[in-house]
Amino acid sequence: MKELKINPEISSYIDFSSYEGKEIELTGMIQNLRILAWGGFLILRTANYIIQTVCDKNNVSFPLETLTVEQTVKIKGLLQKATIKDKSIYPRDYEVQVREIEIISSPSVNPLPVDTTKKELNAGLDTKLDLRPLTLRHAKQRAIFKISSVIYNEFGNYLTKVGFTRICSPKIVFSGAEGGANIFKIDYFKRNAYLAQSPQFYKQMMVGVFGRVFEEAPVFRAEEHDTSRHLNEYISLDFEMMLQNGFEDLIVMETNVLRHIFDELKKQCQNEIELLEIELPSLEKIVCLKFSEVHEIVFNNFKKDFRSEKDLAPEEERLICEYAKKEWGTEFVFITHYPTEKRPFYAMSDSANPAETLSFDLLFRGIEITTGGQRLNKYEDYIAKMTKLGMNVDSFNSYLQAFKFGMPPHGGLGLGLERLTAQICKLSNVKEASLFPRDINRLEP
Amino acid sequence: MKELKINPEISSYIDFSSYEGKEIELTGMIQNLRILAWGGFLILRTANYIIQTVCDKNNVSFPLETLTVEQTVKIKGLLQKATIKDKSIYPRDYEVQVREIEIISSPSVNPLPVDTTKKELNAGLDTKLDLRPLTLRHAKQRAIFKISSVIYNEFGNYLTKVGFTRICSPKIVFSGAEGGANIFKIDYFKRNAYLAQSPQFYKQMMVGVFGRVFEEAPVFRAEEHDTSRHLNEYISLDFEMMLQNGFEDLIVMETNVLRHIFDELKKQCQNEIELLEIELPSLEKIVCLKFSEVHEIVFNNFKKDFRSEKDLAPEEERLICEYAKKEWGTEFVFITHYPTEKRPFYAMSDSANPAETLSFDLLFRGIEITTGGQRLNKYEDYIAKMTKLGMNVDSFNSYLQAFKFGMPPHGGLGLGLERLTAQICKLSNVKEASLFPRDINRLEP
Repeated sequence: MKELKINPEISSYIDFSSYEGKEIELTGMIQNLRILAWGGFLILRTANYIIQTVCDKNNVSFPLETLTVEQTVKIKGLLQKATIKDKSIYPRDYEVQVREIEIISSPSVNPLPVDTTKKELNAGLDTKLDLRPLTLRHAKQRAIFKISSVIYNEFGNYLTKVGFTRICSPKIVFSGAEGGANIFKIDYFKRNAYLAQSPQFYKQMMVGVFGRVFEEAPVFRAEEHDTSRHLNEYISLDFEMMLQNGFEDLIVMETNVLRHIFDELKKQCQNEIELLEIELPSLEKIVCLKFSEVHEIVFNNFKKDFRSEKDLAPEEERLICEYAKKEWGTEFVFITHYPTEKRPFYAMSDSANPAETLSFDLLFRGIEITTGGQRLNKYEDYIAKMTKLGMNVDSFNSYLQAFKFGMPPHGGLGLGLERLTAQICKLSNVKEASLFPRDINRLEP
Repeated sequence: MKELKINPEISSYIDFSSYEGKEIELTGMIQNLRILAWGGFLILRTANYIIQTVCDKNNVSFPLETLTVEQTVKIKGLLQKATIKDKSIYPRDYEVQVREIEIISSPSVNPLPVDTTKKELNAGLDTKLDLRPLTLRHAKQRAIFKISSVIYNEFGNYLTKVGFTRICSPKIVFSGAEGGANIFKIDYFKRNAYLAQSPQFYKQMMVGVFGRVFEEAPVFRAEEHDTSRHLNEYISLDFEMMLQNGFEDLIVMETNVLRHIFDELKKQCQNEIELLEIELPSLEKIVCLKFSEVHEIVFNNFKKDFRSEKDLAPEEERLICEYAKKEWGTEFVFITHYPTEKRPFYAMSDSANPAETLSFDLLFRGIEITTGGQRLNKYEDYIAKMTKLGMNVDSFNSYLQAFKFGMPPHGGLGLGLERLTAQICKLSNVKEASLFPRDINRLEP
């Protein structure tokens, strides 16, 4: 038997201020390297920092010309104050005067296939995605995924704080929740099963248990078209809750969540925001338009006639966002009351006008990032609606039993993590906001 | 255009203390109901509380006999101090004297197929799972999943605090990471693809980017056997990190994470712990045994001879935990140095004895809850190992390129959320710790 020491230190950040003027030892990968006549600069990357180190030939005997980017090295030296302008470096108020360098591991190709040391990563989308383990090491690529990670964390943190319980619903399912043909089939011990298109059925069932639930998990859509807005696998940030005042509770709750996320991004991602030269949106007012209004506004202001359409075309989403920004100074528009015939069977219709649903999409900077709404909550209403649509009610029994057992008025929404990240970071393709995107042509890496 | 009010109130908990002696309005589902000659008790459940309300016929004219459990009702009444013993109720220091009751929705079957109001849920495992949307409403069932939710949240919170970045890796993959036949096949646009058995390849690639990464996500194992320890889909809590001192860093880090989780459970789940009558484990020392020692201890102390086995049998895991508890007073044992031939190709062998790996399992109360270890980090080592094992190196190119581009010494682990929850809650079958478990016979609900 061997007993190890419980050591909280293994967990901790380096607090650079406590090392000022003192010897420090750091291990990291070489993010960047500049060799000059007098010595050179070595930029080291780890989880917690990308720090500048200075190698003066008078102090360090190591042959600097043997160093290459993406080596892992251990250095020892003196931590001292500095004033660094390069926004990819943090902290920017310290640097290390190096005394010793030891190489821990090295790449086995030289040169690397793309240069990750330049201010911009000079590579097309396919190259970026093919060489993901390398291209993601570029400072700006890392910044995108730091932001994405904070969004994921803070969505959950906010909802937990206000009484939501996290759930984990199965991704292998007996039936699609969203209808249509865009569903992946699995061979499940010689039976047919599918990959979940959304946690819809499960989060509804769980409202009966916990009242307020959320989930952050992958969903799968077998979309055959390869666009800049679609992924075949993405992270859906979902919540579902009892309603007290109607479906507009959902819009207010989403606004609260997003405001919290933007506040936290401001606190936790200042380096990344500066580096990417982006501006966080502000959500100071909640602007709602009825679906039917959108066609009119677009027709009257842009002379484009979508009035016979039962859904919003991508161009229309862009135009209405442009209009909302100009007219009401907001980058967010909630579009409510989508036509009943375009929403899934579980959508609650407006009793005042059954052709419209108590549902909404949220558009942000020209793109839909959320779909949500109130759901049916009475068993009889499900049977009537599904029968009318010609659905096989029996095959949904294990879901419908929840309504038999009693369910409160409820609703919820799904927010696409990659779309939100892409819009915040001003990326032109949602794939750039996915670490390892899946599309009709891409399964690797 | 309609503008909604930004209303942080919609998010907030009810602070009962501020309503003491005042009128309060509550909406919830009827968790339990006791009708007596003078009136009755109505226990209301929502996200935030399971509160006792008192219906005195002198105060409330509503016909109490029309109420049933699992109805959603809105009540108005006076909040007053109380001293309640029932551990399924919280808060226990307040109750409501009801004046008005309104039924919002009702179950469409009566009686319900199982009684969720008794102290224990009197149902076998299959019934529990078949009727999940109802049985999960039982107070003790809810408690299990509240605990599970806090474990998930706090695993991420701790790691975030100490510099880890959350990643989301794809679940549709080009190849299995864990080898073997237990992998689900998907029809991916006429190509073969698989469901990820673990995020192994991706979290390793991401160590090269962020140094410390974690993921909390479903993994999929096509295990044909139906046991009390296995699920075909479960939540894997994973981290992967650069190592500075060797693979034992991982054991210390996992200990820190678990200690944090137990501290938070103590703070956040006091009601649930009392209700389930469980005791949280304490992790006061880190006990490590070499794999080879385990066989000897079990042979010498229990007269069971597993000495020729290259893996630990379930019985042996139970016995060594029993021994560790008696001998060292701990419910946790790390078993290190598993045989190289039993670990996957990416496992790092011990240079002092290449037949053993720098790897470990963590056993807790008789069951393995974690597998982890140091990984190979040199490209050449991967090629040599995979060639020796007769693997098709080319089919792993998109993964192996990460090592070509340079990778630091690193390792990580996966912790099964359902197993940890089941062991903490003393459940006899891991399926009881999964909301909607999947096994060879079960795809619904």
